Amino acid sequence: MTQQYDTIRAVIWQDNVLKLLDQRKLPHEEILLTLETAADTAQAIKDMVVRGAPAIGVTAAFGVVLAARAAYAKKPNHWQTEIATDLDILANARPTAVNLVWALEVMKGLFGQIEGNPEPVLLAEAQRIHEEDIAANKTMGELGSALFPEKCRVLTHCNTGSLATGGYGTALGVIRSGYANGKITDVYADETRPWMQGARLTAWELVQDKIPVTLIVEGAAATLMRQGKVDWVITGSDRITANGDVANKIGTYSLAVLARQHGVKFMVVAPMSTVDYNLPNGDAIEIEQRTAEEVLSIGGKMIAAEGANAWNPVFDVTPAELVDAIVTEKGVVEHPTTEKMAELLK
Amino acid sequence: MTQQYDTIRAVIWQDNVLKLLDQRKLPHEEILLTLETAADTAQAIKDMVVRGAPAIGVTAAFGVVLAARAAYAKKPNHWQTEIATDLDILANARPTAVNLVWALEVMKGLFGQIEGNPEPVLLAEAQRIHEEDIAANKTMGELGSALFPEKCRVLTHCNTGSLATGGYGTALGVIRSGYANGKITDVYADETRPWMQGARLTAWELVQDKIPVTLIVEGAAATLMRQGKVDWVITGSDRITANGDVANKIGTYSLAVLARQHGVKFMVVAPMSTVDYNLPNGDAIEIEQRTAEEVLSIGGKMIAAEGANAWNPVFDVTPAELVDAIVTEKGVVEHPTTEKMAELLK
Repeated sequence: MTQQYDTIRAVIWQDNVLKLLDQRKLPHEEILLTLETAADTAQAIKDMVVRGAPAIGVTAAFGVVLAARAAYAKKPNHWQTEIATDLDILANARPTAVNLVWALEVMKGLFGQIEGNPEPVLLAEAQRIHEEDIAANKTMGELGSALFPEKCRVLTHCNTGSLATGGYGTALGVIRSGYANGKITDVYADETRPWMQGARLTAWELVQDKIPVTLIVEGAAATLMRQGKVDWVITGSDRITANGDVANKIGTYSLAVLARQHGVKFMVVAPMSTVDYNLPNGDAIEIEQRTAEEVLSIGGKMIAAEGANAWNPVFDVTPAELVDAIVTEKGVVEHPTTEKMAELLK
Repeated sequence: MTQQYDTIRAVIWQDNVLKLLDQRKLPHEEILLTLETAADTAQAIKDMVVRGAPAIGVTAAFGVVLAARAAYAKKPNHWQTEIATDLDILANARPTAVNLVWALEVMKGLFGQIEGNPEPVLLAEAQRIHEEDIAANKTMGELGSALFPEKCRVLTHCNTGSLATGGYGTALGVIRSGYANGKITDVYADETRPWMQGARLTAWELVQDKIPVTLIVEGAAATLMRQGKVDWVITGSDRITANGDVANKIGTYSLAVLARQHGVKFMVVAPMSTVDYNLPNGDAIEIEQRTAEEVLSIGGKMIAAEGANAWNPVFDVTPAELVDAIVTEKGVVEHPTTEKMAELLK
């Protein structure tokens, strides 16, 4: 039923190499980059060719396949020692995404049982991680859209769609599902400065899949809510802590505060691999800071006055008490607490 | 004392013509456009060569001088009839700015007492409006900065400085004063999409005047507040209603809600000409909508996916109950109400 709204894949294993849709070039150009080494894969993650926590996890898993191929070619009997450097390089590509570390751990977990060439076993595992991510997203799409009233108007932030995941998307997967089943009437996307993921990526995905979308600047979200034009704000997450605090793209916390003030519901959609049960709450999350350049310029062109500084935190933390629902593939947690989040593990 | 932080003028009467610093080109190019007719002046207002309610008012006053010159040259005995078309064109250049209409009314108020060539009388009046605006801004600078604690950190929105006024600025004038008298330690400016007045204009002004400034994307304001890095949010206004509701650049209302939630104070700085005592409250304010193009593109370059829509309200309305102080040249109104606002007229 929802197939018609699911036509995009950003991470592709093809012809024995990894191909990534270069998200820095969208929406103007659709370029598939070919990656044949783990170092190139890590660099692509660092350079944001691929972004979005689940997509980074899937990419890293394929990166391990490339790393194992190289290590096995060089030292067939000691590839597990040889591969260590590449695993480190992959692990350090982006600091905040817990999915990256999670995917590497899953892949490493197989090393002990591999005999001979590790590539077939690791490739099968990377493909399983990829397919499971898509399946999880479709499950979350159903669970999340079940929370909607009839004729629901939604606002989303950043990009959490096929481009940010193995496919289909987390928050945007819920929007795909809600649109497919007729519940969603209006989709607003904020442009999401400084990287413009909303304008460049979310709008592109929705246009590709023929779902009408209206962009707003982030400063307009409060007025949109005050005018009663939105029922749910729906975002993804880069890391959820044991109590339900949510780290996500800068601007998310702002939307959560504004939603609560205007009686708008706030939903976070993320796979279980995003939940970091080792962190009790959001205070423990390391927030990545990126360069001032990203704020001072747009698309490589300086826009601010020469001599100005910028503060550029990439993520923010939304406390659990502002979250109406966390949707995972294992189920929905309404008004999250440490106890309710723990029940997802049962 | 504060002269060193006040070096910029955007509206200049020179060599018997009006010159405007083209704000569309800043910060990359500093171009003075020369305007010799009222129609060109109205077009410059419409095209946002000049923007900011007080600067538009001053510009319109000089536009009347140009209109009177042309009308008197054409029909010396009937210039007051001849000028009507130009006055209409000026009045319709921008719908929201009350200062525009106010300046035109002040100028028209002199028509009855003019004999012979109207230009000298009207020019003197336009120059008086210009000088009074600067003087009012300096008064507001002192009144507003008097509210600061020692070591105050401020966040401002859009551009309310010399570029937006006759000179010195409203909200930015308070920041100039606060910096000059040593109370302000940190100035944050949000970039203010879609027109980037913060990044392009406010940052440029502050850099010119050697006041350090740190830009943030609007989505980062909530986190800045949550981290306790800001004490006052300070904005200008395009129109204040009789009860103290504030129409201002889109994004202002969002900052006001966030400020209240985080225990940050919210100050609005605007001359008395901005206060529209004919409107009981903000519900009556017509909010200008501009083209979707401004959201879909940056600096003329399309940034969003082809096929996406956009919602682009230029202003929003902040209810009086979220405002801690309205600062005018006639005095400060804390926690504005209709009664307190009326006292400013006494």
